[in-house]
Amino acid sequence: MTWTPDEGERQRGLVQVYTGNGKGKTTAAFGLALRALGQGLRVCIVQFMKGSATYGETRMSGRLEGMSLFQFGRTDFVDPRNPLPADFEEARKALLKGREALAGSSYDLVILDEVNVALHFKLISVEEVLSLIEARPEAAELVLTGRYAPAEIIERADLVTEMKELKHPFHCGVDARRGIEY
Amino acid sequence: MTWTPDEGERQRGLVQVYTGNGKGKTTAAFGLALRALGQGLRVCIVQFMKGSATYGETRMSGRLEGMSLFQFGRTDFVDPRNPLPADFEEARKALLKGREALAGSSYDLVILDEVNVALHFKLISVEEVLSLIEARPEAAELVLTGRYAPAEIIERADLVTEMKELKHPFHCGVDARRGIEY
Repeated sequence: MTWTPDEGERQRGLVQVYTGNGKGKTTAAFGLALRALGQGLRVCIVQFMKGSATYGETRMSGRLEGMSLFQFGRTDFVDPRNPLPADFEEARKALLKGREALAGSSYDLVILDEVNVALHFKLISVEEVLSLIEARPEAAELVLTGRYAPAEIIERADLVTEMKELKHPFHCGVDARRGIEY
Repeated sequence: MTWTPDEGERQRGLVQVYTGNGKGKTTAAFGLALRALGQGLRVCIVQFMKGSATYGETRMSGRLEGMSLFQFGRTDFVDPRNPLPADFEEARKALLKGREALAGSSYDLVILDEVNVALHFKLISVEEVLSLIEARPEAAELVLTGRYAPAEIIERADLVTEMKELKHPFHCGVDARRGIEY
């Protein structure tokens, strides 16, 4: 049984931020997506700086009805001291896709995954993201993930959660594991 | 395309804890489940103190191949100052289900959702959970979620993330919203 919100039931969407140096930011965003889909909402995830399609969550997304996923970025990591023109271009395309997803009111939940890192690397500007936030339809829930969320974004957000690493085994030489970390 | 880990590739599973007063603990666990399913792993989620099937993530789980979800608990909230016999019984059944899920090696990822709260409320004992951790097969990844993770569990875990609330709109009178908070 699914549920589709009607005008009466629909409440104002919030701006949520998941930031911090701990695990679970992108993961929580995908969990939110799963929950929203389970209640009949429509979900759009735009990923910044994630050119690889080998992530487990990416593979699953294609099988979930009501979920759209768009990935932007080169397959290589961005060098923050020396970003390439393609890095700027991909981040700009991602932001545009996020704007479009919100503007069309086609989605109840829009997730800009790793947008905070793109901001931190100055691939896009804080003003551009604040303007996207202001322009969104009132009912849309917007989720911004990634380390290094700038103060202006935190200030503007309704709900901010910091994922804080208390203990991490990679420090003791455990490698990232398929199906668990990606 | 799915991927099933073979003996050579399989690494030692870790004990992960998601705790803290912020959002995203259960949500991150469901995101982890989604990721693992996308890589062909088998996932079991055991929920403590969650008798309601109206959560969006619960509804979705029935549609996901490779995922088993078991819920325990009464539909009402547990009163920590005065837990009912049924609360103890349900928590014990949940713990037993978690043990079984691990013992059979039928799952690559086992999530004990809200087990930390059940521990905090003393519905089950820390010793019982530590013994479950010790008895698990080496390859199984075990995730324990919920506020108030006891020090002994944090000490034993390999990876601990604290979800820390930096800002929360419910303090300003926003209600929990279907598809977003549940």
